[in-house]
Amino acid sequence: MSVASGYRACVIGLGSMGMGAALSCVKAGIATSGIDLDAGRRDAFAAAGAEAVADSVAGLSGAFDAVIVLVVNAAQARAVILGEAGIASRVAPGGAIMVSCTQSAEDAKALGRDLEAMGILMLDAPVSGGAAKAAAGEMTVMASGSAAAFDKLAPVLDAVASKTYNIGPEIGQGATVKVIHQLLAGVHIAVGAEAMALAARAGIPLETMYDVVTNAAGNSWMFENRMKHVVEGDYTPTSAVDIFVKDLGLVTETGRSLKFPLPLASAAFAMFQEASNMGHGGEDDSAVIKTFSGIELPKKEG
Amino acid sequence: MSVASGYRACVIGLGSMGMGAALSCVKAGIATSGIDLDAGRRDAFAAAGAEAVADSVAGLSGAFDAVIVLVVNAAQARAVILGEAGIASRVAPGGAIMVSCTQSAEDAKALGRDLEAMGILMLDAPVSGGAAKAAAGEMTVMASGSAAAFDKLAPVLDAVASKTYNIGPEIGQGATVKVIHQLLAGVHIAVGAEAMALAARAGIPLETMYDVVTNAAGNSWMFENRMKHVVEGDYTPTSAVDIFVKDLGLVTETGRSLKFPLPLASAAFAMFQEASNMGHGGEDDSAVIKTFSGIELPKKEG
Repeated sequence: MSVASGYRACVIGLGSMGMGAALSCVKAGIATSGIDLDAGRRDAFAAAGAEAVADSVAGLSGAFDAVIVLVVNAAQARAVILGEAGIASRVAPGGAIMVSCTQSAEDAKALGRDLEAMGILMLDAPVSGGAAKAAAGEMTVMASGSAAAFDKLAPVLDAVASKTYNIGPEIGQGATVKVIHQLLAGVHIAVGAEAMALAARAGIPLETMYDVVTNAAGNSWMFENRMKHVVEGDYTPTSAVDIFVKDLGLVTETGRSLKFPLPLASAAFAMFQEASNMGHGGEDDSAVIKTFSGIELPKKEG
Repeated sequence: MSVASGYRACVIGLGSMGMGAALSCVKAGIATSGIDLDAGRRDAFAAAGAEAVADSVAGLSGAFDAVIVLVVNAAQARAVILGEAGIASRVAPGGAIMVSCTQSAEDAKALGRDLEAMGILMLDAPVSGGAAKAAAGEMTVMASGSAAAFDKLAPVLDAVASKTYNIGPEIGQGATVKVIHQLLAGVHIAVGAEAMALAARAGIPLETMYDVVTNAAGNSWMFENRMKHVVEGDYTPTSAVDIFVKDLGLVTETGRSLKFPLPLASAAFAMFQEASNMGHGGEDDSAVIKTFSGIELPKKEG
């Protein structure tokens, strides 16, 4: 899709996902500005072709047709959009905001209502895929919102995503799909840890256990990716334990608001909370295996 | 590997896995007999090149160098090997029995001890891969036992498996690896059901949820294979709920014998037991989703 002349985008949050999205927009020929509190990230994006960078919207001029919000959680998203010097005041007439943090459907809906009252379109559009996919413009976007919001954001969606799911028209559905995805991801990591811990307890070599599972029907994307870290004894974070404390917290909040029992997610949530409580919150999420005692785990070589 | 002249094999249990193994042995040029209580299965194997078929070892002549036991559980395995007219009396000097049911390490060890006392080699060798892989001679075998047992069974392992893992020398290790594999498989089905049930409760179209997950990091082999049945509303068994009641029972038994807590496997076991208790024991294992109430699931078309 060719981008209409004068179409301006702004990415808020230049972390690994946001930077990938911002660079993908630039590559697609979209005039793209970036906002981040970190000077190093701003400099990196400025050097890579940003129209402008700043530590807040006050440092940028003019209005934006498309805003992508890639901050950590709902509170940050609300602050950067509706807070003092929020981006809402700089959305061009007919412009849209793509809100891509992982948050509850309730928080997404509240934001959507407030933006609607201001005449601003919103897409409830969580993303997945990790830093490498984001850098390649190949994120997966699970989005809900009006046809007008999808239309307005089409150039940036084309730029940043290899696949955009249209979940439906209702703000909150995108958030819910992401939350349910995280339910699976979190339980898969926790049960991978449970299985590998039992193998260690039973005297099964963990490399062998890993090899068997990854070649059989017991495999999962998360088992294959994260239990490799356990086999190597390397807990350098790909994504930290505390991210799943947050995300499985959203999962249980979703269950509670729907009065829906989630026996496995609740058990996994307790495991991640215990890992964080033991002091492993900043380690790779596979460190949830350290909640099992009486076993010896591989140590990192060298 | 060329098979030594006069090497004779016998497969006990001509179900989908056993029939696949038996046919693979015949294809590899091994003189192979088969035992099954079902006349239809015996006839099918006889027509496909069996040396002989019978409903018990009494109906077969001579002794066997290699025996493959592919019955349902430990009790059946013990009965066909050591019971009245058991195959143990027909193992040739230096012969070996490959015991491939899913059973506890304790049961495997007890069998190994009894066979050792009789001078018979045993390989503790559970299999996975399903009927299609078995028919193609491409099962995965996770085996433990002595080098002599591996050597004696090499021709049949070559015939039936695309991959044989040598877990270690100790009988019980193969059984344990399979049990841990089933822990993962069972929890992955149960959490797939939990996630899809929550999606149904939240009003997310299940086809969309399935599509998102199978293209993202929340995917598992079991989610992709079994939640398809939920989307299609078709609970014709690939593998039944009651198989996981049995296998997760073995998992919890393993945890108990090692005094090792298994929070996720225990929760999933309760879910499969409840599904069976509700009357769904003979349905596809994805019917564990029927334990969630207050949701409407897709119905089979046509």
